[in-house]
Order: sequence, then C-alpha cells, then structure tokens
Amino acid sequence: MRFVIEQVLDAPASWRAMPDFAEVDADLAREVLAQAGRFAQDVIAPLNGPADLQGCTWRPDGSVTTPDGFPAAWQAFVEGGWPALPCAPADGGQGLPQLLNAALFEMLVGANHAWTMYPGLLHGACEAIGHHAVPALRERYLPKVVSGEWLATMNLTEPQAGSDLGLSRTRCEPVDAAAPVVNGAAVTVTGQKIFISGGDQDMTDNIVHLVLARLPGAPDGTRGLTLVLVPKILPDGRRNGAWCDGIEKKMGIKGSATAQMRFEQAEGWILGEPNAGLAAMFLMMNSARLHVGMQGLGHLEAATRIASDYAQERLQLRAPSRPAGSGANTAAARGPDPIAWHPAMRRILLDLQTQTEGARVIAYWTALLLDEAEHHPDAAVRAQRHDLVALLTPVVKAFLTHLGHHGANAALGVLGGHGYVHDWGIEQHVRDSRIALIYEGTNEIQAIDLLMRKVLDRPGRLALLLGVLREEADTLDAQAEATTAGDAAGLARWAALLREEAATLERATATLQRERATRPDLPFLVADDYLQALGHTLLAWAWARLMRASLGEADAARRQRLQALCAHGRDWLLPASRWRWTRIESGVPELAWPGL
Amino acid sequence: MRFVIEQVLDAPASWRAMPDFAEVDADLAREVLAQAGRFAQDVIAPLNGPADLQGCTWRPDGSVTTPDGFPAAWQAFVEGGWPALPCAPADGGQGLPQLLNAALFEMLVGANHAWTMYPGLLHGACEAIGHHAVPALRERYLPKVVSGEWLATMNLTEPQAGSDLGLSRTRCEPVDAAAPVVNGAAVTVTGQKIFISGGDQDMTDNIVHLVLARLPGAPDGTRGLTLVLVPKILPDGRRNGAWCDGIEKKMGIKGSATAQMRFEQAEGWILGEPNAGLAAMFLMMNSARLHVGMQGLGHLEAATRIASDYAQERLQLRAPSRPAGSGANTAAARGPDPIAWHPAMRRILLDLQTQTEGARVIAYWTALLLDEAEHHPDAAVRAQRHDLVALLTPVVKAFLTHLGHHGANAALGVLGGHGYVHDWGIEQHVRDSRIALIYEGTNEIQAIDLLMRKVLDRPGRLALLLGVLREEADTLDAQAEATTAGDAAGLARWAALLREEAATLERATATLQRERATRPDLPFLVADDYLQALGHTLLAWAWARLMRASLGEADAARRQRLQALCAHGRDWLLPASRWRWTRIESGVPELAWPGL
Repeated sequence: MRFVIEQVLDAPASWRAMPDFAEVDADLAREVLAQAGRFAQDVIAPLNGPADLQGCTWRPDGSVTTPDGFPAAWQAFVEGGWPALPCAPADGGQGLPQLLNAALFEMLVGANHAWTMYPGLLHGACEAIGHHAVPALRERYLPKVVSGEWLATMNLTEPQAGSDLGLSRTRCEPVDAAAPVVNGAAVTVTGQKIFISGGDQDMTDNIVHLVLARLPGAPDGTRGLTLVLVPKILPDGRRNGAWCDGIEKKMGIKGSATAQMRFEQAEGWILGEPNAGLAAMFLMMNSARLHVGMQGLGHLEAATRIASDYAQERLQLRAPSRPAGSGANTAAARGPDPIAWHPAMRRILLDLQTQTEGARVIAYWTALLLDEAEHHPDAAVRAQRHDLVALLTPVVKAFLTHLGHHGANAALGVLGGHGYVHDWGIEQHVRDSRIALIYEGTNEIQAIDLLMRKVLDRPGRLALLLGVLREEADTLDAQAEATTAGDAAGLARWAALLREEAATLERATATLQRERATRPDLPFLVADDYLQALGHTLLAWAWARLMRASLGEADAARRQRLQALCAHGRDWLLPASRWRWTRIESGVPELAWPGL
Repeated sequence: MRFVIEQVLDAPASWRAMPDFAEVDADLAREVLAQAGRFAQDVIAPLNGPADLQGCTWRPDGSVTTPDGFPAAWQAFVEGGWPALPCAPADGGQGLPQLLNAALFEMLVGANHAWTMYPGLLHGACEAIGHHAVPALRERYLPKVVSGEWLATMNLTEPQAGSDLGLSRTRCEPVDAAAPVVNGAAVTVTGQKIFISGGDQDMTDNIVHLVLARLPGAPDGTRGLTLVLVPKILPDGRRNGAWCDGIEKKMGIKGSATAQMRFEQAEGWILGEPNAGLAAMFLMMNSARLHVGMQGLGHLEAATRIASDYAQERLQLRAPSRPAGSGANTAAARGPDPIAWHPAMRRILLDLQTQTEGARVIAYWTALLLDEAEHHPDAAVRAQRHDLVALLTPVVKAFLTHLGHHGANAALGVLGGHGYVHDWGIEQHVRDSRIALIYEGTNEIQAIDLLMRKVLDRPGRLALLLGVLREEADTLDAQAEATTAGDAAGLARWAALLREEAATLERATATLQRERATRPDLPFLVADDYLQALGHTLLAWAWARLMRASLGEADAARRQRLQALCAHGRDWLLPASRWRWTRIESGVPELAWPGL
C-alpha cells in the first residue's frame, strides 16, 4: 500500500500542491496506515467469522442486536477518531485525503465487511447534511454523525423500486400546511423502504435516516423525490415512527442488519431543495461508488493472502517441476510438494496477486484524483480531475467488485474442500463480496453509465484517459532511453503496449459512436464488454506504472516479484480479455426475443 | 428433457439395440421423468430452503439429525423404488438406463442438492459391493443398499490427504493374524477421515461405510490402499467403532451432514483385493463424475428458471427497445418494462438458457454412451463407447459444474438485491453449486486428467471425438442438400463451424503433443484452457444437434426459441472462448516463481 502511495503515485507530491492537505505527508500517511492496520487486524478481524455465524437478531419490538463485539468495536473506532477521517475540519473532521480513507476501508473490508457496513455510509451522510441542511439541522446532526456518536442510513429502495427509483411511493407531507415547503421544512414521512443497511442496530443511541420521499403533488418519476432527514429518536427524546419490521436473511455480510423499514408519520425535515432529492443523493455517488470499489479490492487482497498462505503450507502430490534453488530438484527429494508449486495453483495465485497489485493502483489513483477534484487550488485542474473521476468511477465500482468477488471465488478453489468450510474464512469472502456487485447501482448499470453517459455522450472525457495512457507511454520511452540496456527493452515494450491499448480503446469507441446512429441498441448490448475491456486497459496502465516504479525498489526480492507480476499480467491476463475489444469492433448480432 | 432424449439423441433407438433395455422405450422414459419430476417438485423442493436455514445438528454422542422432513422424504424415495433405478435387476434394481438416472438426478439436484447428497453415492456403493464383495458380504449388504434401506458413504479424504490419497494413514489390521489376508477377510480399521457426506444421519437404521485403509506392511502411496466395508451397526446388533466426531459448517449444502469420522478398532471386511482399493474406487469414477456433472446441470437449469421468471415479472425502467408485437412500441405506452427486455439482462438470460440446453445434450449423450459402454451387445461398440466416455467424463464433470456455479451466480445478478437474500432461493444455488467444482476430483485435476491421460497419452481417444464432430458436419451438409433453401444455409453454416472446431481442436492438440517434448510443463499450464475450450467445442456440437433436431419440431414457438438459442450460442458464446485455443496454439510463457 505504501509502495503504491509513495513510489507509484507519489501522492505526497500531490498533497503538497493542495493547501487543504498542507499537513499531510508520507510520514503521516504511514502512521495512519499502520494504525488502521492495527485496528483492522486486532479489533474487527477477530469478530468476522463469529459474526457471520451469529448474524443479527431482530425482535418484534423492532430492535436489532448486532453480533457480539460489534458495539464495542464501534466505540473503539469512534474513540480513535476514524469516522471523521475524511470529513472537513470545519465539521469536526480530520480533513485527511480520500486516498487514506480508501486505504482504511480496503483494510476494514478485508478484515470484516459486515462490521464495515455500519460506517460505510457515514461519509456520504456527512456530505449530504453538510451540503444541504439548513443551519439549525446541520448543527444538530452533523457533529454527531461526523464523530460517529450517531450512525446514518440511506433509504432509497422500495419493494417495487430498485434500480428504478422513479417508482418510489414513500410520501412526505408538510406538518404545517400553511408554511412554505422549503429546505428545512418539517414533514412527516410514511412508506416502506427495504434493504436499509443499519436500519436498526445497537451500536449508537440514535440513527439518522436519510429518506427519499414524495411531496404532495410532486412530479412522477425521479424529479419528484425529496430528501428528508428522519431521526430514530427525536430531539425531545420521543421515539420517532421509523420502525424496523424485520431484517433479511442474506447470502453474506450477515453481521450487517439489512432492515425492512416502515415510516409511519415519522417526523423529519427536508434536506436540500424539494424535489431535488435524487440530485442531492448523486452528489455523494462518486465517493460512495469508489468506496464500494474498495470493498472489491479489500476482498481480493484478503482472499489472495489466505490462498497464498494455504498453498505454501499444504503439501499434496509431486509437482511436475520445482523452483530452481528449492533444494528439491534432486532425484532423492521425495514426498509431496506445496500445492503452490503445481502449475494450476501457481497460475491462480499469480492471477490473483497480479490483479490485486494492479487494482490497488487504479483505486488509489482514482481516490487521489477525487482529492484533487475537491481540493486542488486550480479550478481548471479541479474540473479536469472531476471529469476523469466521473469516467473512472463506474469502472472502479464494477470492475474492482467483479475482480474481488470472482477472485475470492478462485481463491476458494485453491483450498479445495477446506475452502468450502467456514473455518478458513475464504467462503465468507466469496459470500460477502457478492453484494458489492449489486448495491450502489448494479454492475450492469455501471456499465451503461460508463459507456452511454461518461463516454459516448461526453467524448472529451475519454480523451482525458487516452492522454493518461499515452503520457505514460511517453514517460516509459523517455526512461527507456535514459536507462541501462536490460531495463530499456522492458520499458519500451510496456510503452508500445499502452499505445496499442489506447489505440484500441479509441478505435472501438469510435466504432460504437458511429454505429449507434443506426443501431441505438448496440451500446447497451456491449456495455458490459466495454467496461471489462476498459478495466483491463487500466490494469495494463497500472502494471506499467508498477513496472516503472519497481526500478527504484532497492529490495531485489520485492523488485523481482513486482516485475514478475507485471509480466504475468501482460502475458496471461491481458490476452484473455482482448476478445471483448474484438467483439465491440467487429459488431455483434441482435439479441433474440425468445419466449424466455 | 424429453426433446433431448427423443428428438436430439434418439435414445429409444439405442435402447432397442441393447437387450438389457428391451423393456425401455419412450413411453416408459416419459413416465419415469414425469414421476421423478413430481417427486422432486412435491417432496424435496419444499424442503430445500428451510433445510438450508436449519442445517444438520450434531450431538456429542456422535449422532446427527438431518433437517425436518429429510427422513420422511427418504422413505418416500425408497418406497418409490428410486434408489434402485439404475442397479442391475439381479441385485434387486430396476435395471433402467443411466441416462434416466442422470435425468432423475438433474431434477433432484435442481430441487434440493443437500438432500440429494444422501443417495448421491448409492449407485457407486452398489457397484463397489456388487463387483468386489465376497458372496456372504454381498448378500448381507447389497440388497439393503440397492433398496435404499441402508445408505452408504465413501471414506477417502483425511486431513493431510485430499487430492493426494497416497498420503492416507488410516490403518486396517487382520482380526485373525494367522488367516490369509484376502478379499472378505475380517479386519479392524483405525484412523480419521474427513468430509464424509452422510457419515452419520437419522434417515436409515444402518450406514455402510466404504473406507480406504492401509494394511500392515502395505506399500506407501496409492498402491497400498485397501477398501474395507465397515457398517455402523454390526450384524449382531452391536454399535461399531465408526464415530462421527463433528460436522462441518459449510458454504452450502447445509442439509447434508459432512462428517469428521473416527474409526476406532472398527470391525469390517476387505472389499476386493488387498492393496487394490483405489482401483476398486476408480471403477465407479466415471459414473460418479458424470453424476457430479449432472449437479452442475441441475443448478444451471434451476437458477436459469428462477432468473427468467423473475425477469419477466419485475418491472424497472424503460428498455431502450421493445419486442415487436409487444403492444408497447407506441409513444403512448408508458411505465417501466420487464427487466427481461433490458439488453444487459436479456443477454444474461439468453446466455443461461443457451448453456442449459447445450449442456443437457452433452450430459445426456455421455450418459447414453455410458449405457452403451456397459450394455451394448457388441464388444467393439462397448470398447469404443468406453473410450469416448473416459474422454468426456472429466469435461462433463468440470465444465458442467463450472457452468452450473457461474451460471447460478450470473442468474443471481438478474435478481439484484433480491438475489442476495434467501427468499428467492438463488443465492442458495450459488452456494450449493460451488462444492461440485471441488469434490470427486477438483476441476483442476479433471483438466489435467483430460489433457494428460485422456488426450496426450492416448491419441486415439481424441480421434473418436473428432470423428463425432465431423460425422455431425457431414449429416448437417447432407440434410442441407435435401432440405428447403431457408434451412439449408443455416445447416451448412453449422457444418462449417463444426469442421472448424474439429480442425482447431486437432491442431491445438498436435501443438501441445509436439511442444511437450521440450516443455514437459506446458500441458499443465494450459490444461484448464484446454478443458474450457473443449467444453465450448462440445457445446457447438450440441447446439448443432439441437438446431438439426429443431427442424422436426412441430410447435413453431418452440422451434423458433431453440433456433434463436443455438444462434445465440454460436454468435455470442463461442467467440468468447476461442482465445483459449489461440493461447494454446501460440504458446504461453513460463509461470514465474515469485515469493508468493
């Protein structure tokens, strides 16, 4: 993690350019990472397996008990000042970069995804309240949410309204029919919401529900939704009409209470402009989706580690060959080999490690761009970074969660039958990671968002990314000229590869842009291919940067490992994805409409 | 299912050629399928979700309670005569084809995988006892196992011996040291076995454990393993020293008791020749692995059905286009569309349905070949079918379980957040199906078995399959010439495609055969690619056969649907796999040996 932050991305240089991060440097970042690592490892990792077996308990009075240890871990998190990490100092936060918050959440999710669901939406809630609340509301709720004394929820989904929030039916009505319906106005909320993470819990005394609801006479669809702040406990101490009617039995993240919420004349206040609730929600989307992408990375990293450790310990069968210098190459050496030596397992482990290293570069880079989009002193830089983040966000969300879940599943296979039982923790990573492909906009919706809204409808955005790829190719070439012969060939090869990736990306996109004039459906048919292929193009860029940074790595073993992984990605993983560009460029037939 | 059995494979014609199946015809097969369907749907499907939540209960006395309803369902299964379906009439079985047994198990697993684990090994146990037991032992145990009055287990794995059975340590010692150690000799067994499905349960009064153990002085490795029959209850009514020390907490198939078994001076009798236990086990491998492949198919089919049903009911967002004749193409038509109309969902559903239809043809065909390998009156045909089955078995096991698990996972995505909760049953299919990729030899081991033992070491075997592909191409061409213009082009295109698939398969295999002389590791590196690519070649063949059979389908809607699916497979699924052949043909770099 430090290698990526310091050597690959040189984040400290970026921080120096942003006055808001004047006090952030490599030493501070190391200290934050070290403490976060200790918290993840010592406090929440031990709770992960037991919480999965225990789950949450719902009682008919609407109360939810979280697994043993969860409330105490939350207290420790609050006392450590972690909830406030990326929040603005003016709001009581520490004002640290999103990049460090992303690294924190990578560790938290790898240690305990279910527990991490509770603070997962805190930052988004802070943003929503911070940006939209009238002063009185803001003063009453923001400090408590920033400190973590109270937790927050997002109430969007309804039984009939999932990806289509325009179908929401939950109503809100002004308390004072005569008063103007404006930001901060008191309303009552009535309706049903489902899939509400932390809808009830026993970790905090109060819960701040942010609810999308429809005012009387509001337009149909998404333009008629208003965001309302509904506390579980009202300021005067009364229990508000926000009830948890039950929690879901789920595939994973069982320690996270996924609540069915019933709002019954619940009292609340409008947050932001009436009918502009969805826009207020979307303000937090970039960071929320980046956050979900980090969940993918956290699972990928944790599962890779379990599989790698197991594969070195577990001895089964003779491998067809053995590593040079293993001392086991003589005929006299007998007995079974570590399964990591068997090619089928070695290939999986190399795939996983290569993906982990590359995905981390993509994720941290995007987080750094997000910091620059928000904090860079130059407005032009901010705007450019914002556009790049908007383009990258659906890829980070969908591609990294895809890698995380399917990587964890591949890692399970390394453990064989042992992977299928609870003890090793890997089957839990498979189950827990699956939800990240769904929530905060399904991966299919991310793919459409990427291709339609971010690429085809805004051609300039892709040019930014093409520029990044070609700039890196130029840097690699320049470094190849300035370096010793051995490294030069490798660097030039990566430069050529990135130029090829950029050319393919540009050409395939132009094809879609042209073809959709006559086949408007076409981009929808190949959106998933486009996102996956672009994800691999980003991996290629990430490996090139890792390769370049590895030249400065003093430790020979680490340098060698990194370079081996980059070569593995280039030679084994990229060729397995190129058919998607081919499919996009060569066109696809219409999909049938069979009687499904 | 009937379409594949009757129209695609014309199994009744094959049965007519086998005197052992003189009484089997299409009517009987239909009746068996209908009854099996009723049993699956009415008796065990309702238990599936509840059993997953309840699981099995182990008590310190070593007893296991299965989920509510499991014992009664077992009684119904026994009374229906189902356990004996494929067993020889001489042993009290019904002597029906493996093909019908395969179809039965496809339905059972789709309805309730966990329950189906209990009879899952029955047929193998019957084979082992039937072929190897001395008469007294055979008479005592075979009828009870064939009828299902007693269930059986296979005890192979030990904590240190998973894929590497040669590391087994469980010992067996002759009771009478003076007597000759021969088939049927009384021994005591001591040792620990893990992952024993049904190691204890409350469904039958007795359990027949088949245990791999090592006689005193036996050779190391797999050549020193002896198969021993160890009943839970001895003939004189005493409780034998075969104890269940606990059951695993698993990702799925929670209603199946996966036992840790402790054999402590347990009394038993040698089954087959001493030190030939592994060979005795391998005798059942083809049918056991085909059986596991059917599990993949069962999950694929069930998950596809859930996703298809959901996608037609669930209304979200407007689709970019709507089916002709849907009555919703006018500007006046408003509101959200079924998600099945959205291209991203339609693509997943078409993928799933296309895979299901193709996989079923592959599986049933292999089962039919297995029947012919065992029952055909012509020894030459039997030998040829045996060789073909040996080649196909690892593909059916690994490829179909791969399709089943990853297909169920894709189907989950169609349901979005609802797919992640227990209610819809689809997340259970994802969890339950995962084990099938692991047991009966992991899919990685199947890939090595296929490429090394079945293909490269026995070149004649692949020629059989190439012959099948080219024969079908000839048939398609002949039919194209004899048919109307419209169909002809389609048939000829499929013929050309199969010839291309055969040529690619032949060329890639020849490349590996040649290259491994200098790179003995190479086949191990690409074994997984080879199996996946060959699986897709078989799908191409299966779709071609479905396409051809569809021409005789009178129902226009069914004909159209089948043809649309075959075209989808050809245009969407095959191109996504061809890079594997390219990888194999163009060579792969060595895998690194990083400090993993």
